[in-house]
Amino acid sequence: MAKPCVFASPSSTPLLKDELDIVIPTIRNLDFLEMWRPFFQPYHLIIVQDGDPSKVIKVPEGFDYELYNRNDINKILGPKASCISFKDSACRCFGYMVSKKKYIYTIDDDCFVAKDPTGKEINALEQHIKNLLCPSTPFFFNTLYDPYRDGADFVRGYPFSLREGVPTAVSHGLWLNIPDYDAPTQLVKPLERNTRYVDAVMTIPKGTLFPMCGMNLAFDRELIGPAMYFGLMGDGQPIGRYDDMWAGWCIKVICDHLGLGVKTGLPYIWHSKASNPFVNLKKEYKGIYWQEELIPFFQSVALPKECTSVQKCYLELSKQVKAKLGKVDDYFNKLADAMITWIEAWDDLNPSTATAAKLPNGSSK
Amino acid sequence: MAKPCVFASPSSTPLLKDELDIVIPTIRNLDFLEMWRPFFQPYHLIIVQDGDPSKVIKVPEGFDYELYNRNDINKILGPKASCISFKDSACRCFGYMVSKKKYIYTIDDDCFVAKDPTGKEINALEQHIKNLLCPSTPFFFNTLYDPYRDGADFVRGYPFSLREGVPTAVSHGLWLNIPDYDAPTQLVKPLERNTRYVDAVMTIPKGTLFPMCGMNLAFDRELIGPAMYFGLMGDGQPIGRYDDMWAGWCIKVICDHLGLGVKTGLPYIWHSKASNPFVNLKKEYKGIYWQEELIPFFQSVALPKECTSVQKCYLELSKQVKAKLGKVDDYFNKLADAMITWIEAWDDLNPSTATAAKLPNGSSK
Repeated sequence: MAKPCVFASPSSTPLLKDELDIVIPTIRNLDFLEMWRPFFQPYHLIIVQDGDPSKVIKVPEGFDYELYNRNDINKILGPKASCISFKDSACRCFGYMVSKKKYIYTIDDDCFVAKDPTGKEINALEQHIKNLLCPSTPFFFNTLYDPYRDGADFVRGYPFSLREGVPTAVSHGLWLNIPDYDAPTQLVKPLERNTRYVDAVMTIPKGTLFPMCGMNLAFDRELIGPAMYFGLMGDGQPIGRYDDMWAGWCIKVICDHLGLGVKTGLPYIWHSKASNPFVNLKKEYKGIYWQEELIPFFQSVALPKECTSVQKCYLELSKQVKAKLGKVDDYFNKLADAMITWIEAWDDLNPSTATAAKLPNGSSK
Repeated sequence: MAKPCVFASPSSTPLLKDELDIVIPTIRNLDFLEMWRPFFQPYHLIIVQDGDPSKVIKVPEGFDYELYNRNDINKILGPKASCISFKDSACRCFGYMVSKKKYIYTIDDDCFVAKDPTGKEINALEQHIKNLLCPSTPFFFNTLYDPYRDGADFVRGYPFSLREGVPTAVSHGLWLNIPDYDAPTQLVKPLERNTRYVDAVMTIPKGTLFPMCGMNLAFDRELIGPAMYFGLMGDGQPIGRYDDMWAGWCIKVICDHLGLGVKTGLPYIWHSKASNPFVNLKKEYKGIYWQEELIPFFQSVALPKECTSVQKCYLELSKQVKAKLGKVDDYFNKLADAMITWIEAWDDLNPSTATAAKLPNGSSK
């Protein structure tokens, strides 16, 4: 029988109130937070301001936040700031790095509170936390979806030795209304809206890659943070809109190697506005053909046994990126270098986990 | 963009009316068919009567059917009838073998028509047919589930080269009300009912095993039929209630090898009655510990390139079962032999596909 996941905090205290930061990349005033107030106000926000640093971003009153613009990023990271993208929402990963909390939730500023089929407003953050606090089951598929949810369990034929599950590192949420399509699909189906509410959370099986969208995403920084790098995108780069995809492929192969789980499904947010498909096409077109080589690369990545920490895995991955993708385009040589810089910057800002990374798994605690 | 799956038969003709048989194993009168009449009556039924062959099974009027009892099976298969289980619903696979149609739907006689959340009766067979006629996507996970459904598509980051999908060989449907739990879970949660309607169909990724339940299952006989053997269960055997699980593990590794898809999710049926958990425990207990060795075995099965037909794959699998599972229990030596007998019997009854099996893939057509 699946052990029920019990969330024991008193009902008056929001779950993980002091252990989770909400990271928001933005270029505009954060009016969208008004709608999220009942759910987000108890938490600390990390706002990563993209674009012109002289612009003043207004944050609705009553929210507890810190804000970083490009000048702040350059000051904090010095020359290592080169690994943080500019003029692309990939800059959000700076927020993951400066957080001191165990968990991160990141959301785009064009995402609003969705309603479930009964009309009730969905507390997306609460569902992500439940996903992260319940185990994952990457080694065998459960046909009734997440066996740890109320009213569900492991079905007949599910090996008992696998019913404890593994720690969940990532919770990938979905979107009602505007679906996360690429530019060609946007162009062909401009009016398509996602209206199907699928009441499921599931583990993405070991060995299977998925397209991770950064719009509505939560993760455990301690388990997987150093691999949540959103790459080099936007200003000065030949590609955009692949930041979250890149991170998704990297975290998945590392989670698979380390025996961690990745969940997808609930919660939904309401994605309000389709981005311009013509602009997107320009950002994406190299990614669209590069990904035909990237997917086979990530599908065949093998990390050696010695890679016992996320940092070690990620540095090994950067080596393989350089060795195998450098010939696809010189961009991947730059990206591989930036992956190393990212880990160095992460370790500078997070010295305790950096130490852990250099010792055999867990022995530093 | 995903090519929409168009089902072009005139609305007055049920889909695949002359290309699908419904296989029902039973020991009792088939009153349950009354509820299915609007959906099943246009199709041909193959009833496999288990237990005492002298008992007369009543079939409601107006259904087109053929019925086989144990005497019929013995007469048709001769000594090869030993591969067909007795006093266990595993006997249903005899129906797969005698069918002359391209598609099979099999359902238990304690399964009734379920309702969707709007209160509409679900035509389970129609949904299975849609699942089988639309491609599968086993090589990469689509976060909006089946990309070929209305209102869905491939999301950003899904490689374009994989968007054609692969042929779907199996459609695994689910159950509302009584969930398909093993005896230990039934004993611990006697009152649990499945009330969650998850509006999704998805492909089980390549390399991932799942617990296939035979209660509400459809498949393409031409693509995977010879691997749908439900094993040796029931009378004279040390195990029961693992017939569908065994078939599920076998078909999944063969589908993965041949590049075929397996879908799970919709449609739901209403499973009316929990079987006795004490009786089930007796049938299952060997399976519960054997499966701890079976799963690693199936997870590591590698079929050589020369296995270009289902029959060749299945015979190779029987060899590996004997070599690697024979030491777990002598039962698996018997089962491996029965797997060979099953293929011989299949080829006797299906000479055209048997020929195809002996020639290089497709060259007999």
